[in-house]
Amino acid sequence: MKGIVVFSGSAHPELADEICGYLSLRRSGVKISRFSNDCLQAQLLANCRQRDVYIVQPLVPPTQEHLMELLLMVDAARGASAGQITAVIPHYAYARSDKKDSSRISLGGKLVADMLAAAGVDRVLTMALHAPQVHGFFSVPVDHLTALGVIADHYRERDLTNCVVVSPDLGNAKQATLLARLLNLPVAAGSKQRLADDRVVIDAIVGDVSGKRAIVLDDEIATGGSILEICNRLADFGAEEVSVACTHGLFTGNAREKLTSCGKIVEVVSTNTVPPPSNFPGLQVLSVAQLFAEAIDRIHNGRSVSKLFNDVDPSYAPPPQPEGLF
Amino acid sequence: MKGIVVFSGSAHPELADEICGYLSLRRSGVKISRFSNDCLQAQLLANCRQRDVYIVQPLVPPTQEHLMELLLMVDAARGASAGQITAVIPHYAYARSDKKDSSRISLGGKLVADMLAAAGVDRVLTMALHAPQVHGFFSVPVDHLTALGVIADHYRERDLTNCVVVSPDLGNAKQATLLARLLNLPVAAGSKQRLADDRVVIDAIVGDVSGKRAIVLDDEIATGGSILEICNRLADFGAEEVSVACTHGLFTGNAREKLTSCGKIVEVVSTNTVPPPSNFPGLQVLSVAQLFAEAIDRIHNGRSVSKLFNDVDPSYAPPPQPEGLF
Amino acid sequence: MKGIVVFSGSAHPELADEICGYLSLRRSGVKISRFSNDCLQAQLLANCRQRDVYIVQPLVPPTQEHLMELLLMVDAARGASAGQITAVIPHYAYARSDKKDSSRISLGGKLVADMLAAAGVDRVLTMALHAPQVHGFFSVPVDHLTALGVIADHYRERDLTNCVVVSPDLGNAKQATLLARLLNLPVAAGSKQRLADDRVVIDAIVGDVSGKRAIVLDDEIATGGSILEICNRLADFGAEEVSVACTHGLFTGNAREKLTSCGKIVEVVSTNTVPPPSNFPGLQVLSVAQLFAEAIDRIHNGRSVSKLFNDVDPSYAPPPQPEGLF
Amino acid sequence: MKGIVVFSGSAHPELADEICGYLSLRRSGVKISRFSNDCLQAQLLANCRQRDVYIVQPLVPPTQEHLMELLLMVDAARGASAGQITAVIPHYAYARSDKKDSSRISLGGKLVADMLAAAGVDRVLTMALHAPQVHGFFSVPVDHLTALGVIADHYRERDLTNCVVVSPDLGNAKQATLLARLLNLPVAAGSKQRLADDRVVIDAIVGDVSGKRAIVLDDEIATGGSILEICNRLADFGAEEVSVACTHGLFTGNAREKLTSCGKIVEVVSTNTVPPPSNFPGLQVLSVAQLFAEAIDRIHNGRSVSKLFNDVDPSYAPPPQPEGLF
Amino acid sequence: MKGIVVFSGSAHPELADEICGYLSLRRSGVKISRFSNDCLQAQLLANCRQRDVYIVQPLVPPTQEHLMELLLMVDAARGASAGQITAVIPHYAYARSDKKDSSRISLGGKLVADMLAAAGVDRVLTMALHAPQVHGFFSVPVDHLTALGVIADHYRERDLTNCVVVSPDLGNAKQATLLARLLNLPVAAGSKQRLADDRVVIDAIVGDVSGKRAIVLDDEIATGGSILEICNRLADFGAEEVSVACTHGLFTGNAREKLTSCGKIVEVVSTNTVPPPSNFPGLQVLSVAQLFAEAIDRIHNGRSVSKLFNDVDPSYAPPPQPEGLF
Amino acid sequence: MKGIVVFSGSAHPELADEICGYLSLRRSGVKISRFSNDCLQAQLLANCRQRDVYIVQPLVPPTQEHLMELLLMVDAARGASAGQITAVIPHYAYARSDKKDSSRISLGGKLVADMLAAAGVDRVLTMALHAPQVHGFFSVPVDHLTALGVIADHYRERDLTNCVVVSPDLGNAKQATLLARLLNLPVAAGSKQRLADDRVVIDAIVGDVSGKRAIVLDDEIATGGSILEICNRLADFGAEEVSVACTHGLFTGNAREKLTSCGKIVEVVSTNTVPPPSNFPGLQVLSVAQLFAEAIDRIHNGRSVSKLFNDVDPSYAPPPQPEGLF
Repeated sequence: MKGIVVFSGSAHPELADEICGYLSLRRSGVKISRFSNDCLQAQLLANCRQRDVYIVQPLVPPTQEHLMELLLMVDAARGASAGQITAVIPHYAYARSDKKDSSRISLGGKLVADMLAAAGVDRVLTMALHAPQVHGFFSVPVDHLTALGVIADHYRERDLTNCVVVSPDLGNAKQATLLARLLNLPVAAGSKQRLADDRVVIDAIVGDVSGKRAIVLDDEIATGGSILEICNRLADFGAEEVSVACTHGLFTGNAREKLTSCGKIVEVVSTNTVPPPSNFPGLQVLSVAQLFAEAIDRIHNGRSVSKLFNDVDPSYAPPPQPEGLF
Repeated sequence: MKGIVVFSGSAHPELADEICGYLSLRRSGVKISRFSNDCLQAQLLANCRQRDVYIVQPLVPPTQEHLMELLLMVDAARGASAGQITAVIPHYAYARSDKKDSSRISLGGKLVADMLAAAGVDRVLTMALHAPQVHGFFSVPVDHLTALGVIADHYRERDLTNCVVVSPDLGNAKQATLLARLLNLPVAAGSKQRLADDRVVIDAIVGDVSGKRAIVLDDEIATGGSILEICNRLADFGAEEVSVACTHGLFTGNAREKLTSCGKIVEVVSTNTVPPPSNFPGLQVLSVAQLFAEAIDRIHNGRSVSKLFNDVDPSYAPPPQPEGLF
Repeated sequence: MKGIVVFSGSAHPELADEICGYLSLRRSGVKISRFSNDCLQAQLLANCRQRDVYIVQPLVPPTQEHLMELLLMVDAARGASAGQITAVIPHYAYARSDKKDSSRISLGGKLVADMLAAAGVDRVLTMALHAPQVHGFFSVPVDHLTALGVIADHYRERDLTNCVVVSPDLGNAKQATLLARLLNLPVAAGSKQRLADDRVVIDAIVGDVSGKRAIVLDDEIATGGSILEICNRLADFGAEEVSVACTHGLFTGNAREKLTSCGKIVEVVSTNTVPPPSNFPGLQVLSVAQLFAEAIDRIHNGRSVSKLFNDVDPSYAPPPQPEGLF
Repeated sequence: MKGIVVFSGSAHPELADEICGYLSLRRSGVKISRFSNDCLQAQLLANCRQRDVYIVQPLVPPTQEHLMELLLMVDAARGASAGQITAVIPHYAYARSDKKDSSRISLGGKLVADMLAAAGVDRVLTMALHAPQVHGFFSVPVDHLTALGVIADHYRERDLTNCVVVSPDLGNAKQATLLARLLNLPVAAGSKQRLADDRVVIDAIVGDVSGKRAIVLDDEIATGGSILEICNRLADFGAEEVSVACTHGLFTGNAREKLTSCGKIVEVVSTNTVPPPSNFPGLQVLSVAQLFAEAIDRIHNGRSVSKLFNDVDPSYAPPPQPEGLF
Repeated sequence: MKGIVVFSGSAHPELADEICGYLSLRRSGVKISRFSNDCLQAQLLANCRQRDVYIVQPLVPPTQEHLMELLLMVDAARGASAGQITAVIPHYAYARSDKKDSSRISLGGKLVADMLAAAGVDRVLTMALHAPQVHGFFSVPVDHLTALGVIADHYRERDLTNCVVVSPDLGNAKQATLLARLLNLPVAAGSKQRLADDRVVIDAIVGDVSGKRAIVLDDEIATGGSILEICNRLADFGAEEVSVACTHGLFTGNAREKLTSCGKIVEVVSTNTVPPPSNFPGLQVLSVAQLFAEAIDRIHNGRSVSKLFNDVDPSYAPPPQPEGLF
Repeated sequence: MKGIVVFSGSAHPELADEICGYLSLRRSGVKISRFSNDCLQAQLLANCRQRDVYIVQPLVPPTQEHLMELLLMVDAARGASAGQITAVIPHYAYARSDKKDSSRISLGGKLVADMLAAAGVDRVLTMALHAPQVHGFFSVPVDHLTALGVIADHYRERDLTNCVVVSPDLGNAKQATLLARLLNLPVAAGSKQRLADDRVVIDAIVGDVSGKRAIVLDDEIATGGSILEICNRLADFGAEEVSVACTHGLFTGNAREKLTSCGKIVEVVSTNTVPPPSNFPGLQVLSVAQLFAEAIDRIHNGRSVSKLFNDVDPSYAPPPQPEGLF
């Protein structure tokens, strides 16, 4: 297979450029047209034949537009005889729709995975899926990166005295537990209660947070509503201050206002899997471009991606050499 | 298989209601939710098990939103064990993307057909595809209706003296030829010239229009640009007046202004495959609801849909009884 | 489609018989043969043509044998022109393999789902999947029942004063939270710590259990190791007594001995999704046969299965009638 | 992937040899056997393992025999672990069956595309499909060449004074329009009328042909019936002489006699996508072998095929380098 | 599903009519057209919607034509929303191509099975496959009938004193063994020797035939070459007379002359799975129409087809009622 | 594609090691884990990205365990982006289930082939399938080796005076015929009779064995029952001594005792496609490792595998260079 070609949809060309920088490549052009009836069309402006094609597109709002762009670019690359097509989806937003928690409900995380396969994707490269099981929704290989190493590096440079890692959701605390382990800190979690009319509130904190400095970790922050709620509960239970961290920082609506309304929040940390909001000056943005570039380089050259998990998640790191077999 | 259940996305519930009226049914509810990260979710509010499910959704702007709604509703119906799922797409807008007329370009008409199949559609019921070959993009059965009968009925009630049917595009004049035959009128067509910078202009009229009253027929009118151009050319070539007719009348942007700016246009006729624009008072809207209802009824009861082509297109009408076989 | 035919592999014919009893049917016979080279063969001893076929087989040890039996029975039913084939898998044990938590590891939960589809299954009827996302591993419709209603009924007849529902795993506490809500009780959870050499220990209890009577809920109990550990921790943290409940009670190895070794355990409750162990006299076994029979009856007759979630999980219960649509 | 291997069925080995000549290769052998029950079998006489295999076979009469040969050769190449299989189908005759223009009719163009995919084709290389939409019938990449450049070169060497390009069918005049543009000539078209008993006649010429020299362009000439008809109409409308050109010149039945019976026809031009008839001495045959050889070379070496459209169809030519992206 | 509709291609409408007679139905019409470029098209002249469609077409010479007709009829039926499509292929001639007995050879039996599935067949109803394993080439259910009962009935009415059943091929003697068992006769077989230049001769008879009356049984007789050879060998080894029987009696080329040239042959028996040759007056033709009609009736009504094997092959007959299960 | 990586399941690591020795490679490790609920999990301990992966696993008892291991290893390799996955299955035991010889019976040989494809296998490398048609059960390419060359070499070193090759089954004597040809010996076969209660006995020998030394050839010996029976019949019919040879020597149950109980048996020969039994000291084991290594080397390097059939089966050997084509 011939060299790497990187395309980007309109969702986040800055990240694609940054990745290309680490790969010492120039991003190739795409012409997205809109028919007068609002249908989209994608034309790839660089030869794809036998090339190792990477199409970078996080599923950020307007999500349906960006998803359709991605599918059309994949379709065009397949029709143009690409050697291999990797959809680089730093934020796979439809992973939020990962279970049938009501009757006759759509399962968007699976449907979009099937659509990507139908369009011709050979592999997906993504980060921090809402639930690790979403990996299994895909019929193509998935390389699933984590931002925990980058986030842990950020906190390792801080004073972590008296800190506790907090998961907003008792029922989904795996990532918080893992970060706590990386930082050698205890863990706590919010306990949600579902109210009559389909609203959910956090009514308790399981674990000790009184007098502590909380690091609240979530995979995605959109409107910031549930983060604000856990911060308020942490305040109620005596936490001294809160640092908020997430992988996918969308900060839609008036998220910034909400977060700054809570006096306890001293810092908000996110990565650039999605375009950082322009109106949130204090936001700490950590870059994951080097991780993605390294993964692309390893995929292209047939080297193991598991090296990227060294010191982050030992279970993913390269296995020790086997000794006694069978 | 048990009874008919009709759902509608948010694109055109009025048409769905009108169809349900002819079927003596009540439309069943759908709850479309939007996650805070802009992903959509569909929940069907009526039992689908073993039911003959019809989901009505023309692909009108915002097209990507409506397409995703449709796919999610299909996914939900399949997951809910629907007996058979028919996507009723009165306007399949992506048919416009029906050929690779540039290098490395997406083929949206085929991609969306594949996505519908991947989502679980068993059949598509549609009308007036941009090209008849688009039928072959689908791997599932397609029932492809025509609005020509409804449009011809409209004109049959008018004085057709000295009229000519005009196709805006010499290269795609099948429907105009068919309407001319139904109305017993001659046909003419615009000849397009492609200019240097990707613009197309109509520079000639092939056929005699001088002193005639033109009926311009197109499948879809969006911004109205090419219709205005053919009307101006018709004026240049001496046509006395113009009646504009189409199946899918989107009238996006300032289409209404454009069309009324041409003094020769005396009438604009469309059908309700798409929601009629609210700001176009003089528009003549013909309803296709009864045709769709009749088709659904025939599909459900296993009767031939070709009856619907009687007196419209004899080639689709039920074949005569065979006599000598082999 | 014609009537219901129920087959059973060798894993749990008693459950199949009990289900048949509720359906007023006789279970149909299957002849499982073993070639001299250890390959298996299945012959269905009742006509399947156009029948609505249900094959009951939980994936219990010897799991590979039972899985292969199931696949062969499905293959035989498909080849015999069954109208519809539902694999009734009360315990889908491979759901435990639901994520890639190490590099280059198999994803058995997805693989077995794909194998069932490849063999010809049209639908899966199962209970209490290890994670709700496993639903999305299947490309065929899944009806996913819960035993929580049956378990809650069991406890509602007890004195629940001073009780707390405990999840062994902080990272996976959804079901415990739901049971707590049904019983109007608080919730607590064990916090796991991963040790150097791949062993996991529970080193803390998040939430208040001191002086309380704990109801420990897990989806599956196999060797009983992790249940014993959480019980010991509960003892350490001052719990007065423990009632252990699970959906899938395999009790392999010396599970019974382990559980009876902990003096705090006053009761062990399981359902019959798997064959109850013969050597565990005190085990409280709750039957789920009626739930499965009711689901089969509703599937066959095209009625909604969501009715079965009434009073158990309101989100799955039939949706209220819609009022204002769009 | 290793080197190119070119096979040919029995339809047109001369073209395959000519292509091989341009590629400086020797054509590899195939043994086509016929069982005594008339079934065919293909054996490839050269190693295919990891090779880039091209199988040349236009679908010319006896069409079903040649199609089956092609499918069997593809099957054999796949079974022999070919690296990539390209069906080189210079004339994809089944494209004529591209729409459902009657009820309950087969769609051969789509069916044969599906059969090629089912047999194991990875790509199709073809020329001058009857309609451009047929591209979308294939689920594998299609490289779709045009003979218009070759045909235009032929006419550029002639005196084109007072010439007009004529399409036999008003409803399908794209190619004629394109050739007219390449030669800087006007365009005209025949208008067809469907008679009562399923016969179609051309009853009018749309556009000015009186006193002109016509170049009639069609994609395929089989029996020559419709070409003769347009030539007679051109004579009726005062055309001085006619040059007939097509890509696929089958000239079946007594086509030669028909064409020579019309006194106005001064020249018949075709390409060698199909074997030129032996009994048509005056036929001008243009070779497309170099175009196919160049396409195969570019496919094999991962270079863009769009270069082949330079100066022929600018929309397919390589896109200009992008400047401002997004 | 609604009622049965039976279509026939041009291969053997007489058999289809005879089957329809047993079913008290009238055969529905098909219009097979041939484009001027030799491509075929099929139009079904009766409504297929939700119907149980049977298409009768044995693969007899011209085999490729008849195969393509069949595929096009299946495609048309699928596109016309048939409820279920059964290809009734009394002679599946491509079963002869059932193994890769040379390198890089096509496997026509599997390829055609895949093509039928790709075209949309839901089930195949056939008789006397060349090898029973060919059943496994199909991904759709196959109902595989046998003519042995009909053939045995024919011989049961004869004097069978001193008879022996002879298989022409030692390596494929299953059917002869089975017929011998039905008639309570011994069995013998020819032993083939492959000569240098790809020719095969029978050089020995394994088993005792001296002074006996041989019943030679083969599945298919085409040119009659190998049958003549076994008869000559039988003569050499002292057989007194020979009766030749087969299921599929094609008798192509000068088969009749060959068979009558051997003085030992006293009778030739065939069935009408294929059209009996017009020029073979002494041929005994046994009808299988009733068997096919009975099978179609049972398929349509969901009754077991295995009943048809009663007294023919006990292993296929309906299984005895199970008593002790597991 | 990058280099070869060879993995082995737990079925036969010795063979994998021997193959690796011929390839001058070290076998890579696999960690097979068993969940406490008896589900299996496979982790590959070497990088697979773009590698040419071979997984060695004959389907020997416990067959279901070994099959599931194989499927899980394939799944893991696919998920780890292997370039190409070849399942090396020296003994494909499920080939025994190759036909529907009773009603409503599973077809394991086809089902397991489909499961391998569903798991992600790109090619199968196997030896001595029970019937050659089983090749056609696979939708992926199969390289099908034969041990006949190795077995013939063994006998060529012996005195073959007065020998005859005997097939235990008249209905399946192809391999014996082929071995006889390689050794220039005559052939005989046992004739089986099916008794009332589903038991089969060999009641006759077709061909002359009196006073001869028999070489009985079978593809697989499991319990040895049918081999013992043919040996006893040979004794009855006057054979002097018997040498037993097979490709797949499982020798399950008390096969060794059975075989040594027959005084006529002077030798038992098998290959190491399966692990030789530890308790059968006199068994002559021929190694096929070099054949498999050579095949893997040729597959990896894109050379023809048919070379391996030189002097064994001329029909598979490389075809002669073609001279006159068409």
